[in-house]
Amino acid sequence: MEFSAKQIADIIGGRVEGNPDAPLQTFDKIESAGPKALTFLSNPKYASFLYTSKAGAVLIAEDFVPTQPVEVTLIRVADPYAALAQLMRMVDELTRPRPCGVEQPSFVDESVTVPSDAYIGAFAYVGKGVKLGAGVQIHPQAYVGAGVTIGDGTVIYPGVKIYHGCKIGNRCVIHAGAVIGADGFGFAPMADGTYSKIPQLGYVEIDDDVEIGANTTIDRATMGRTHISRGTKLDNLIQIAHNVEVGANTVMASQVGVAGSAKIGSNCMIGGQVGIAGHITVGDKVNVGAQTGIPSSVPSDKTLMGYPAIDSSKWLRQCVYLNRLPDLFQRVSQIEKNINNK
Amino acid sequence: MEFSAKQIADIIGGRVEGNPDAPLQTFDKIESAGPKALTFLSNPKYASFLYTSKAGAVLIAEDFVPTQPVEVTLIRVADPYAALAQLMRMVDELTRPRPCGVEQPSFVDESVTVPSDAYIGAFAYVGKGVKLGAGVQIHPQAYVGAGVTIGDGTVIYPGVKIYHGCKIGNRCVIHAGAVIGADGFGFAPMADGTYSKIPQLGYVEIDDDVEIGANTTIDRATMGRTHISRGTKLDNLIQIAHNVEVGANTVMASQVGVAGSAKIGSNCMIGGQVGIAGHITVGDKVNVGAQTGIPSSVPSDKTLMGYPAIDSSKWLRQCVYLNRLPDLFQRVSQIEKNINNK
Amino acid sequence: MEFSAKQIADIIGGRVEGNPDAPLQTFDKIESAGPKALTFLSNPKYASFLYTSKAGAVLIAEDFVPTQPVEVTLIRVADPYAALAQLMRMVDELTRPRPCGVEQPSFVDESVTVPSDAYIGAFAYVGKGVKLGAGVQIHPQAYVGAGVTIGDGTVIYPGVKIYHGCKIGNRCVIHAGAVIGADGFGFAPMADGTYSKIPQLGYVEIDDDVEIGANTTIDRATMGRTHISRGTKLDNLIQIAHNVEVGANTVMASQVGVAGSAKIGSNCMIGGQVGIAGHITVGDKVNVGAQTGIPSSVPSDKTLMGYPAIDSSKWLRQCVYLNRLPDLFQRVSQIEKNINNK
Repeated sequence: MEFSAKQIADIIGGRVEGNPDAPLQTFDKIESAGPKALTFLSNPKYASFLYTSKAGAVLIAEDFVPTQPVEVTLIRVADPYAALAQLMRMVDELTRPRPCGVEQPSFVDESVTVPSDAYIGAFAYVGKGVKLGAGVQIHPQAYVGAGVTIGDGTVIYPGVKIYHGCKIGNRCVIHAGAVIGADGFGFAPMADGTYSKIPQLGYVEIDDDVEIGANTTIDRATMGRTHISRGTKLDNLIQIAHNVEVGANTVMASQVGVAGSAKIGSNCMIGGQVGIAGHITVGDKVNVGAQTGIPSSVPSDKTLMGYPAIDSSKWLRQCVYLNRLPDLFQRVSQIEKNINNK
Repeated sequence: MEFSAKQIADIIGGRVEGNPDAPLQTFDKIESAGPKALTFLSNPKYASFLYTSKAGAVLIAEDFVPTQPVEVTLIRVADPYAALAQLMRMVDELTRPRPCGVEQPSFVDESVTVPSDAYIGAFAYVGKGVKLGAGVQIHPQAYVGAGVTIGDGTVIYPGVKIYHGCKIGNRCVIHAGAVIGADGFGFAPMADGTYSKIPQLGYVEIDDDVEIGANTTIDRATMGRTHISRGTKLDNLIQIAHNVEVGANTVMASQVGVAGSAKIGSNCMIGGQVGIAGHITVGDKVNVGAQTGIPSSVPSDKTLMGYPAIDSSKWLRQCVYLNRLPDLFQRVSQIEKNINNK
Repeated sequence: MEFSAKQIADIIGGRVEGNPDAPLQTFDKIESAGPKALTFLSNPKYASFLYTSKAGAVLIAEDFVPTQPVEVTLIRVADPYAALAQLMRMVDELTRPRPCGVEQPSFVDESVTVPSDAYIGAFAYVGKGVKLGAGVQIHPQAYVGAGVTIGDGTVIYPGVKIYHGCKIGNRCVIHAGAVIGADGFGFAPMADGTYSKIPQLGYVEIDDDVEIGANTTIDRATMGRTHISRGTKLDNLIQIAHNVEVGANTVMASQVGVAGSAKIGSNCMIGGQVGIAGHITVGDKVNVGAQTGIPSSVPSDKTLMGYPAIDSSKWLRQCVYLNRLPDLFQRVSQIEKNINNK
């Protein structure tokens, strides 16, 4: 696909300064964009790249005033980043493979009705009693266990495994290798030191518009459900234990671990590698810095860091004091000397 | 399946207070159980839910004395949690899908004998010389490499990958996406800054009654074996490196990482996201708090926390002192002022 | 396969002390090697095992002088560890399964040319327009999306998922369950608290001689590429986010997480469970201790530990002071008492 700078400007309601015929085939970052790439300047930190850019064209704010001569073609818009996102969504719509039909060989239980606009990839397994929504994509080598329901427009990428009885909403995206509904980690200690498995009879329920990253694991509940609410986004390699509840529009970065029966609120932002203890409650709009460990319940609207987690402002101060600790030891030694010398 | 409260009471040797015909179809937690759910009250923390519960029936201790009027049907038993676990195991026996036979298409090397009561799911791969025990379940899309042995009654869930030559015991459970026997991370640094791969010629041996969580990885040994002893339970997304040895009945929570050649004892409890260094020895009955980092060997019967790990009681004290650090700095400044003013 | 001690000595230019006919069938560690195993003694820490070893033979340095009588057969060489690695590579060459041909059923798009010496395992999926190098191995249940290129001699283990458009170099090894090219974690926050997905239109490029561990995830770029340079080795369960760049010959231990757009230099050594923040630059030859958290850019040639990361020598000192903190509080209290008493 190729568009001219003028065509791009017309789509997003912008104005070309420079060559309106500049041919654009791809997107790239301003520091590396080549002659056929469209790029953007939004963060002033990157402004210096503008004057040497070899890009085909740069989306730039209407009120941006260059401080040096500009050779590259500009497309002036109100909000360069929003314009870029709009163009990216358009290109994505046009180019993302949108497979349809049932590839062979695949395994679809005879009890299952496959919607006419759905995709079942080769080597996918769709078990007894599975219910598939309109336009569902089940990519190759995915596994959908007995009795699972999958809502309209949801995309299950290659190799995802969904155990029996789980419920997936509409317009969800589950990336390759994610495992939904494996047994929760429940074992009762016996007197002889061995462990007896507690059956995990519950299921996982994922509401609409949830995205789940590659190789993330969400365990089925012991009883009842493990629940991910609408609009929540989970990155890769995250662990959600049995009976956890995550509220709406919460985002978790990669490698977060949430222990059993924890309740996490809505609109939280959880950094990478954070650990959250079991049986605690985290409120709404809680922000948590990367690698933080949360051992106990947290009210809404907090920002936490550290291990164990404390208010981020307090934690930052603690780090400063820690750096001055050798100095403090020396000061105390000096005081002791002074006192002894008196 | 539906049982009456009276039928449930008869199975577990309990006594109904309330409606003996209350129809029960499912289990749930006391705070969310609906009219057809059986629930239980064991932890006094949850007692307040009893008086407003909409459950079909509640398993409760014989000696529990309510402090308010109770409307819900009770089933009196000696130990509510044990009674619940007994019922859950019974239901699990009756309801868990117990597949049998060889689904097509699957790939079973001609050298392999499939026991008559085994299950081989569609798209499963069973390589040359594999030995399968009685009642083994190899679920769809699982991979069992050449020469692997799998003991009686072991369940290999969808998409598990077991590399050639590994040995899995009896009654093990390996959850979806786990990888057993990939190459250990062994590379020799060369003079020019590149790395030369050291072949990983060993294997993984997993003893009886081990459970391994979803997407956990256990690497094959450089030489000899990586070894998980009988009765040990590993949660999801755990990394066990080459030549590690884990003792019997040790439990590890999610996202633990154990580096190469570490030896971990029996009956340990390792919290989530813990890291254990290579070539060290951890004794028996060691408890380790979540996110702890263990850089060196640990004798038996210790309880550790922190990074680097120290005795948990010492670590908890350290946390208290850390919180008082700003105050200490102020006190020292005040002392200095006092001294200078004299 | 069986070799005599004499045959082994001839291959590696060594000299037998003891039984030249000792039959050797396997490798093992000195502390556990049985009568048909060849082992080695390189680290003096393990010298005590020599005098009780039941091994078939021990590779040992020419200048090693035993301090007790030795019963086991020795093979004297200049560098025991290098000799062992040489023998292991030889055995690996001879014994590692080298599959060839196309197993059925598999899915290879009609547009794809399969080299005559390549291997496509059963249930593997090779999409439209994929380009396969000579001798490529695509193991069972692997997924290679549309337009992917894979270089000569690269091995893709069972169940690996490579999304469309990614580029894999020559002689790479990608272990089971790894996911290459899933969507980066990019969502724009909306005014109503929901998130809007930013399409991830880029790809992943992996240069020659890279090894990637089991269940590791490397996300595709938002635009442009996520890039792993030549010779770099990644262990299991690592997360590499969108637009990250990793230099040449860098090694990362298991469970490391690298956030979006971070740039990591060449010849770095990153310990297990380390977290690296987004949009920062880590120089060349940086060493990072396990569990370290790196929040900001780091120049070349540093050695870091702690959370947040500081120079390792400074961190080690800080740990010492932390241990003495209770003592310091007591000293300050004592000073205050002394002053007040005056």
